[in-house]
Amino acid sequence: MKIGIVGLGLIGGTIAKALKDNHIISAYDISSDALDYALEKSIIRKKYESIDKFLAENDVIYICLYPKAVIDFVKSNLNSFKSSSLVVEVSGVKQYIIKEIENIKASNLNIVYTHPIAGSEKIGVYNSDANIFNNANYVITPLETNKKEEIDLVISLAKEMGFLNISTLTPKEHDDIIAYTSQLTHVLSLSLVNSVSTTLDTKKFIGDSYRNLTRISKINEKLWPDLFITNKKALLDKISLIEVELKKFKDAIKVNDMHTLEELMIKSTTIRSNMDGGDSDES
Amino acid sequence: MKIGIVGLGLIGGTIAKALKDNHIISAYDISSDALDYALEKSIIRKKYESIDKFLAENDVIYICLYPKAVIDFVKSNLNSFKSSSLVVEVSGVKQYIIKEIENIKASNLNIVYTHPIAGSEKIGVYNSDANIFNNANYVITPLETNKKEEIDLVISLAKEMGFLNISTLTPKEHDDIIAYTSQLTHVLSLSLVNSVSTTLDTKKFIGDSYRNLTRISKINEKLWPDLFITNKKALLDKISLIEVELKKFKDAIKVNDMHTLEELMIKSTTIRSNMDGGDSDES
Repeated sequence: MKIGIVGLGLIGGTIAKALKDNHIISAYDISSDALDYALEKSIIRKKYESIDKFLAENDVIYICLYPKAVIDFVKSNLNSFKSSSLVVEVSGVKQYIIKEIENIKASNLNIVYTHPIAGSEKIGVYNSDANIFNNANYVITPLETNKKEEIDLVISLAKEMGFLNISTLTPKEHDDIIAYTSQLTHVLSLSLVNSVSTTLDTKKFIGDSYRNLTRISKINEKLWPDLFITNKKALLDKISLIEVELKKFKDAIKVNDMHTLEELMIKSTTIRSNMDGGDSDES
Repeated sequence: MKIGIVGLGLIGGTIAKALKDNHIISAYDISSDALDYALEKSIIRKKYESIDKFLAENDVIYICLYPKAVIDFVKSNLNSFKSSSLVVEVSGVKQYIIKEIENIKASNLNIVYTHPIAGSEKIGVYNSDANIFNNANYVITPLETNKKEEIDLVISLAKEMGFLNISTLTPKEHDDIIAYTSQLTHVLSLSLVNSVSTTLDTKKFIGDSYRNLTRISKINEKLWPDLFITNKKALLDKISLIEVELKKFKDAIKVNDMHTLEELMIKSTTIRSNMDGGDSDES
């Protein structure tokens, strides 16, 4: 198939790399550096300067832009989408994107909303790496207007990319669980790093636990504020739940309540152990 | 040298493995299973059933017990330590241990208080692995009563074990920074896991960020309450600092303050990037 990537950043580049052996991949991007790099490295076979031609000539189009840019892109090119092609959206927030696009969309736009749950603290096509999709999770949030063959095609391409669990959720379910598994996780990592309060050279006193927890605090500040704010209700709920859990630790530590601390630890061990299935790096 | 390990768990076993090629390692433990396993796997050359003999025959003794057990062990065997040998204590909290032991200690006990900052969510000698010490951090909290040659010997053995940065801190400095880098890190990971609030099968919706942040939530509930409570003042301070950081995110998200979110992210990226030196797994 002819597959076009809009936005040749880390995720767009990774999709290109993951599909390029079986398909003809092209791309459209405002950065000619990214396009030229991808051509030179044979990540894509063709770059487009005309968006109309790009949208007309591809069978499947992955929109790999930041959430608000997805909406701007769809709005700007609404008349250029072809009803013979399938558009796949891959950002990390769903209700906001779907609401905005479904309000304006015309019958020539066939779009499936999805979220490949994989990424990196690094940015750009230069750091794209097809390995990050291996055995990762992928979520599709189908609408009633989506045809079965569209969903099947998205699933089939996700499998080609290496994803292991491909699930369908409602947009609300997606945003709720991603606020927890992804966005809250990032808020905690950033908060840990930002709360450093010593004049000592911290790196001499950290272990693997701190290293692993804070790697994602090197974060793309152009993308993540968008994700946090477009999913604000769910994320604020999750932060409140963390505050409740932190208070349990504080209260127990204050009164030397060993028993409650043990119970909290047995709980976390049990919950986390139940998530291990499918983790290739867990024993 | 003849090196004896008291408490042949994950850390005791790892010290034995890391030193066994150059020294004669023996051990004392209440678990005969652990001792027999270590003998069979050639991790140690000798097990002791008499603690007096064990303390008399070794040149260096590593006490690898949980914090409160360290104190019980020293109290119970106070008359059996030999002034010709060196005792090295390796638990994750220093002021509490030092205060308790220095109050009772006799002139026959030469002890250096240290903290190898390495571990695993797994427990027992069966999971010991000398690789966890490679390029890790080690802290020594020397007292005025420690002789220079004692400290030099501890440093030399830590280098043999594979540690990269070997620093000296005051006990208060140690407890303050470890409350942040280690204990707070664990509180956050546990709180994240315990705050899960969905009926969906979470493991299908997690990425590497959640996996890496929560691996340590599989935690030894017999060890960590001790560490939290014996360092309560410093840890409670750090939890309060995290609450302040979380509030910054909440406040900014509530009012769609993209600029503040960007600033918080640039801050975390800068701080964390400055810690990368010496991490073999960072690029």
